[in-house]
Amino acid sequence: MSKGITSQSQDYSKWYTEVVQKAELADYSPVKGCMVIRPYGYALWENIKLNLDNMFKDTGHENAYFPMLIPEEFLKKEAEHVEGFAPEVAVVTHAGGKKLENFYVLRPTSETIIWYMYKKWINSHRDLPILINQWANVIRWEMRTRLFLRTTEFLWQEGHTAHATAEEALIEAKTMINIYKILAEDYLAMPVYIGKKTENEKFPGAVDTYSIEALMGDKKALQSGTSHYLGQNFAKAFDVKFQNENNKQEFVYATSWGVSTRLIGAIIMTHGDDKGLILPPKIAPQQVVIIPIYRNDDDKNKVLNLSKKIETTLKEKKIRFKLDNRESVTPGYKFNEWEMKGVPVRVEIGPKDVDRNGVVTVRRDTGKKAFPSVEEFLEDITNLLDTIQFDMLDKQRKFRKENTFDIESYDELKEVVKKGGYARAFWAGNSEMEDKIKDETKATIRCELFEKTKESGKCFYTGKESKVQVIISKAY
Amino acid sequence: MSKGITSQSQDYSKWYTEVVQKAELADYSPVKGCMVIRPYGYALWENIKLNLDNMFKDTGHENAYFPMLIPEEFLKKEAEHVEGFAPEVAVVTHAGGKKLENFYVLRPTSETIIWYMYKKWINSHRDLPILINQWANVIRWEMRTRLFLRTTEFLWQEGHTAHATAEEALIEAKTMINIYKILAEDYLAMPVYIGKKTENEKFPGAVDTYSIEALMGDKKALQSGTSHYLGQNFAKAFDVKFQNENNKQEFVYATSWGVSTRLIGAIIMTHGDDKGLILPPKIAPQQVVIIPIYRNDDDKNKVLNLSKKIETTLKEKKIRFKLDNRESVTPGYKFNEWEMKGVPVRVEIGPKDVDRNGVVTVRRDTGKKAFPSVEEFLEDITNLLDTIQFDMLDKQRKFRKENTFDIESYDELKEVVKKGGYARAFWAGNSEMEDKIKDETKATIRCELFEKTKESGKCFYTGKESKVQVIISKAY
Repeated sequence: MSKGITSQSQDYSKWYTEVVQKAELADYSPVKGCMVIRPYGYALWENIKLNLDNMFKDTGHENAYFPMLIPEEFLKKEAEHVEGFAPEVAVVTHAGGKKLENFYVLRPTSETIIWYMYKKWINSHRDLPILINQWANVIRWEMRTRLFLRTTEFLWQEGHTAHATAEEALIEAKTMINIYKILAEDYLAMPVYIGKKTENEKFPGAVDTYSIEALMGDKKALQSGTSHYLGQNFAKAFDVKFQNENNKQEFVYATSWGVSTRLIGAIIMTHGDDKGLILPPKIAPQQVVIIPIYRNDDDKNKVLNLSKKIETTLKEKKIRFKLDNRESVTPGYKFNEWEMKGVPVRVEIGPKDVDRNGVVTVRRDTGKKAFPSVEEFLEDITNLLDTIQFDMLDKQRKFRKENTFDIESYDELKEVVKKGGYARAFWAGNSEMEDKIKDETKATIRCELFEKTKESGKCFYTGKESKVQVIISKAY
Repeated sequence: MSKGITSQSQDYSKWYTEVVQKAELADYSPVKGCMVIRPYGYALWENIKLNLDNMFKDTGHENAYFPMLIPEEFLKKEAEHVEGFAPEVAVVTHAGGKKLENFYVLRPTSETIIWYMYKKWINSHRDLPILINQWANVIRWEMRTRLFLRTTEFLWQEGHTAHATAEEALIEAKTMINIYKILAEDYLAMPVYIGKKTENEKFPGAVDTYSIEALMGDKKALQSGTSHYLGQNFAKAFDVKFQNENNKQEFVYATSWGVSTRLIGAIIMTHGDDKGLILPPKIAPQQVVIIPIYRNDDDKNKVLNLSKKIETTLKEKKIRFKLDNRESVTPGYKFNEWEMKGVPVRVEIGPKDVDRNGVVTVRRDTGKKAFPSVEEFLEDITNLLDTIQFDMLDKQRKFRKENTFDIESYDELKEVVKKGGYARAFWAGNSEMEDKIKDETKATIRCELFEKTKESGKCFYTGKESKVQVIISKAY
């Protein structure tokens, strides 16, 4: 822990992997492409989960749980869906000591089994809407995996809703991508562009896919959450009809939406620096770490007494904190360790601090030191955490602004791709052109922006006038 | 929902299945032996989870997540473990479109993969203890399945701890079975006997297994949670050693412990009656349901106004409640539905109640009606829920007492088995005798009681003096 890590400028990808392991967020497992999420990483996930789950419930959603095994033939019922997922599934062929007559796949996503069940539950418009979310593990057999960003098994939530009208389903899909934006910006301090995926990039089986796109420290984009308007595709595949208010049978309209443990990768790469993680206070497992400093028993008593007093107040204020009173390692070692783990505020208490009835505080995000009195510290700590949260988002907004470039030609795009960041442009090309751009530049259209900078403009590629403004960049 | 269900006395097993489905706790899925946990059932599980998770964290445990796929050869490393679980596993043989070189099993429990990781993380006594818990799904290929009680896939938590001494591990195993007892009694209102499993019944790979045993409404026992002292078995199987304080290499000591969605089955069968579920207030998804009653618009306004006022106060008091203002069904239909769903308190508000500034309350557990004023109701509701919680446990304690019979001979055991309930007796028999008793009576030794009624006595089967007092009964 005390040893340094590879710097970002030296090798960003190596830096990332080292942070994940040294901050004890995750570790490699003996299962190909699967990781172990260690307690510190899982605590981060729990905080993300809790906040997101509250938002789901506040908007009328309920949690449920569907089988992780899906009959193999289910996947084949929706044409695009099977094409998208069949190459990635893991298959259970034997169980209970025998070969199975019908194989099962491990869910890569649950639309098929959920829509099979919805057929049983939906008869009339009075059974709608169904607003269900599931917290679950999923398996996608990926070729190239990377801790948190792309793993064979990952944890996520997947919402699956059923509606009586296209309009209502569209509103739902947009509401949910907006909730992801709130999660990203207000909790993860990670500004995101929000928009619609192109036909090339949408979810297999969706009519439309909406996404939030974040910008990592190495100026590559990371898709951080998606919400799909599925139209009647799955209702038709599973024959799910309802009797509408005019007593006519109609296919049900659907959405699905999800975010995953990939978000942890996003947090690392959005905020991290050469000392390790920097965690936003709202989701940090520990918001404050207290490090007592002493060399003899007298000082120890003095310092620990003050620390006790501080702990009591922090508990009352519901601050998540940890007292690191290990004696087997030095204070300096602890500083490095908690910096690596990204704890927003470090509090140092030495004998001299006790004498002046004060503490030393150090902000992880700025490194700024302060020397408040104990009373000032305790009165101000909640504000300080809020300030850090705000400043972290603010810093990232500036970073994104500095790295978003309005372009009007293909050459300009190539320049942006070279230096990193987002190219923002109007677009009137087709699917083949998009493929060609990807081949030639490795960059992809991340999304068609919901919030445009102007109503229309000339397509950077075709020169045609267009109302579609997109952001383009390399992406994870 | 309005139609009646099979009564308990008519067919207990049918009653159970109907309650699960009509209360919308779960539904059958298209996957053999797997169920769908519906939102109402899942909300119940979330409340159990939250309370249990808090107790885990208060006792120093952290959550983590390990892969659901386990390399097939791992299972074979612990001799008893493989014998116990190999017949039940599901096997992934193909993935990503190819046959795998090495197969994976879906975790039936995670000792093996976790101890593989612990080898990486444990070097010195300073790395101990490790106190990790995992919330996860597991798969056991069961022949005869039953909603919640025994399903191919189920949700559970599994704690896996590593310790420097046998003593510390033993204390941990006992601490955790006591936490399960607190969960069962203080939250689920379900009294349990707590004790040690016999050699015949212990967990494959454990030195000792402790269990909590509850008594269902049909007077059969249900094992509701287990905690295992694993000694050094898994440390030896995975070669996990640590340097102890005397600088010697020693194998690590272990525990594991778990409860599952089976607890929902236990709640149903402990408290339910011919009208359906009866839920303990502490874990009920809804503690109060408000049913407005009116026949015209004037009355409707009046009634809904009062209901609004009540809702505001219930929210402040953090009572979980639901206003059922559907107009498509009658109040009588709603009464039946919420009785089926086991909501602890029903509140009826009609125009006459508004006139006297009162409400009608009906307790689900006793059926007792009361006619408090609005102020009395609001002031008393928290107490009322506490009283219901207390009374439900008290009722079950009495039921268990009435159905626990001290016996001194095998004939007496047979009589108890005939009428149902627990036989309590001293035991000095061996494993073969236990098998014989099971063959002849279908009853099993549930556990060797931690809390004996007296120090020693004569074995009901062998006549030998013994210090081991057991409870025996048929069980799920």
